[in-house]
Amino acid sequence: MFRKVHHIGVAVNNMEDALALYEKAGGRLIGRETSRDGKADLAMVDIGGSLIEPIAPLDDDSSVGKFIQTRGEGLHHIAFAVSDIKAELARLKKEGFDLIDESARPGFMGHMIAFIRPKSTMGALWELVEGEE
Amino acid sequence: MFRKVHHIGVAVNNMEDALALYEKAGGRLIGRETSRDGKADLAMVDIGGSLIEPIAPLDDDSSVGKFIQTRGEGLHHIAFAVSDIKAELARLKKEGFDLIDESARPGFMGHMIAFIRPKSTMGALWELVEGEE
Repeated sequence: MFRKVHHIGVAVNNMEDALALYEKAGGRLIGRETSRDGKADLAMVDIGGSLIEPIAPLDDDSSVGKFIQTRGEGLHHIAFAVSDIKAELARLKKEGFDLIDESARPGFMGHMIAFIRPKSTMGALWELVEGEE
Repeated sequence: MFRKVHHIGVAVNNMEDALALYEKAGGRLIGRETSRDGKADLAMVDIGGSLIEPIAPLDDDSSVGKFIQTRGEGLHHIAFAVSDIKAELARLKKEGFDLIDESARPGFMGHMIAFIRPKSTMGALWELVEGEE
């Protein structure tokens, strides 16, 4: 089972604008890096212990770039913290969920992550993030 | 400033399907009611202290019904907990945010709430929820 919400991903055209926006919401920047494929600019903003992850495309061909072209800026995914991502992926697969990542892979801030296809989660893109925090 | 994320709203076609889905995510149903305008079925699901609010239309003319017709099911809004919603609405208005609700109104589970138009929040519908929990 999932432990809690880890963070909420938001697709944005411009990272500086997004950081200024979430600063007005009381957010504090705690991390920023380029995605492993080099196609997206990622940040993590802490608002009272809740995390928001703005994602800005560095390439129109990136998944977030395509997302914005199709749906516009806005809420992109919801990430859940799990203690054992391998076990959770096996459980979800057995229960009929459609995994984008069959195996966990390294993601933002050193976490192991995996995504679940929205067609099996009533339209909301889910991410699993392994970690205890 | 906002205290933290209060909950994440997800637009769903069918509430029973949504409750079954979030049960598989480790969720526990903590509240359910019809919206004050009678047009939506609302639930609150707790996953390790994080809250997810599935919203199902009871009427195609409801705002969530129109949302699903336009964008499909999926992530609908992000709600932030605030200590003083009147003061926060005044601050946001002064900072140029476009308020859907100029004044707070009673919402789900007895909270005072207000929504902020997505065109001023980079595409993500924001809700403010007054309360200390």
